[in-house]
Amino acid sequence: MVMSCRTSVFLPDILIIMQTLSQLREEFETRVRAYCPPREPRGLYDPVTYILQLGGKRVRPLLCACGYLFGAEDMREEAWLGALAVEVFHNFSLLHDDIMDEAPLRRGFATVHQKWNIPTAILSGDVMLIQVYHLLARAGATRDLPHIMDRFHETAVGVCEGQQLDMDFERTDQVGWTAYLDMIRGKTAVLLGGSLELGALLAGWPHDDALTLYRIGEQLGMSFQLKDDWLDVFGEPGKTGKRQGGDILRGKKTALVHVAMEGAGSSDRVFLADWYHPDHSLRKEQDIERIIAIFDRTGAGGTVLARASAYEEEAMRLLAGIESRGPGKACLQQMIRELQGRDG
Amino acid sequence: MVMSCRTSVFLPDILIIMQTLSQLREEFETRVRAYCPPREPRGLYDPVTYILQLGGKRVRPLLCACGYLFGAEDMREEAWLGALAVEVFHNFSLLHDDIMDEAPLRRGFATVHQKWNIPTAILSGDVMLIQVYHLLARAGATRDLPHIMDRFHETAVGVCEGQQLDMDFERTDQVGWTAYLDMIRGKTAVLLGGSLELGALLAGWPHDDALTLYRIGEQLGMSFQLKDDWLDVFGEPGKTGKRQGGDILRGKKTALVHVAMEGAGSSDRVFLADWYHPDHSLRKEQDIERIIAIFDRTGAGGTVLARASAYEEEAMRLLAGIESRGPGKACLQQMIRELQGRDG
Repeated sequence: MVMSCRTSVFLPDILIIMQTLSQLREEFETRVRAYCPPREPRGLYDPVTYILQLGGKRVRPLLCACGYLFGAEDMREEAWLGALAVEVFHNFSLLHDDIMDEAPLRRGFATVHQKWNIPTAILSGDVMLIQVYHLLARAGATRDLPHIMDRFHETAVGVCEGQQLDMDFERTDQVGWTAYLDMIRGKTAVLLGGSLELGALLAGWPHDDALTLYRIGEQLGMSFQLKDDWLDVFGEPGKTGKRQGGDILRGKKTALVHVAMEGAGSSDRVFLADWYHPDHSLRKEQDIERIIAIFDRTGAGGTVLARASAYEEEAMRLLAGIESRGPGKACLQQMIRELQGRDG
Repeated sequence: MVMSCRTSVFLPDILIIMQTLSQLREEFETRVRAYCPPREPRGLYDPVTYILQLGGKRVRPLLCACGYLFGAEDMREEAWLGALAVEVFHNFSLLHDDIMDEAPLRRGFATVHQKWNIPTAILSGDVMLIQVYHLLARAGATRDLPHIMDRFHETAVGVCEGQQLDMDFERTDQVGWTAYLDMIRGKTAVLLGGSLELGALLAGWPHDDALTLYRIGEQLGMSFQLKDDWLDVFGEPGKTGKRQGGDILRGKKTALVHVAMEGAGSSDRVFLADWYHPDHSLRKEQDIERIIAIFDRTGAGGTVLARASAYEEEAMRLLAGIESRGPGKACLQQMIRELQGRDG
């Protein structure tokens, strides 16, 4: 199946690309719905449909599409299968992470283990991971499938290792900035990189250019996660859809905490160390303001945003060095602009 | 790496084959140990090493080896990778099933979620499933990898669906014999079939002969599970390593229960229906004898064994119709003999 990515030659380029991205989003939603018909046993497949249709920004499948459009003029079946693979993988990891983190809500709705139960959430997650590899194998059947599998393996293992580090960090108060970066690289960045690279490989694009796309996605992922940490405190709840300071209340050691610890005076440092100590069990809501005041005094917000920007700039620098055959480069540039400007 | 499967031409055939099987077992154990070096983050990988080295009969990797030796004279690297893939898959499913079933012990040792915790067991299981596909991709890199992935997908999905049916059946007292067979086909048989077929495909054996091997493995798996149900009541605890009647005490609706329900008189049927009702929460140990007496009166033990034998005979019939290039057929015949005679 082919979808033309150029709808009109009379529109200015930027509008064409915005329209292309929104068409890609729309088509992807149709594909997700078609992928989720009712299937037996319902107890296994209904939660898969539920989480895949909760929405989300669909960043990973769009990155996969951008990667594909580096090597191809138009989206074809194999590209959509790849886009589905990365989105199903992302949702599998959310489903299992939500059990591990005991999260009651996901995108404002009950998590699968809350709506059903833990065994269901485990098993439905498992079948999703199995589906990921089936989608990958179908997508890459006429390409260099062993290489595609090998590269996706690095991403998939990286995501698990990132989640493990995240859990380890909750039980220690000795986490350095580098270890924190390793953790977010696994939890967020490698899948963004892997999605872009997968798309390019599915279009038969050269391995080394595809690897550059991986690196671009990785930089974007780092920036994405740092911005997420920043939005928790400085974003508008109306736009983020989350309560302000939710990470603070949960004692989550975000980038803001690491930066604030570096620059805080001794009494602020003692307060932070106590608040974020793994054994601290009763964090009071009225004290959130005090943490935010420390973030303000240390300029943590600005520093985190600056570090996020540095990753974006590196992504743009890498991107400037490669050309695309199809509209992939322009689409990716537009996606980066959207991610830069996002406020939720 | 090549291992010769014929050690001496002077030994009688059956002894050569027994020796071949025991060499394969030994070599596989070496491969498992080499596959499990300490790796960071330890919280993620230590449980993988732990469960893979708890032992077990290694039926699936041996079946994979037999399948490979249908198409090849000797074991090569790709065959061992395939054998590891099916064993890692089996142990991934045990790890997650044990959480779902709240099992405290596996092979006499603490289950992973008991020894560590549930999040660890979920995440380590996930990384095992990811490793499975990496092993598969490396094993099948020079063969028809899309077909290998497609066939393995059917097995992997079948195992999840079997576990879902098993959980569904715990919440209902309306399970027929056919539904029960579908459940054990998924939980046990498809992976035995998939292991044999995978080996043959990795040796480049024709797809349709490999499919016959799948069917043979499936029949063996059905027989294997029925025999397991029988051993719970009629096996010697010293040999099975399990307490007699453990399934009865847990209210597990095994093959014995289905057969007994078919042939029981009305008062026995009422007692059985009550005992196995999903809401029955206090099954008393002293009543196990009464259930066993019903099994005896209805001849359930003999019937279940006869049905198990019928599956074995069908496997032997199918096996008689295909020839092997290497020692695979003789090895498989010997494995079937061992499975027939097993008492634990």
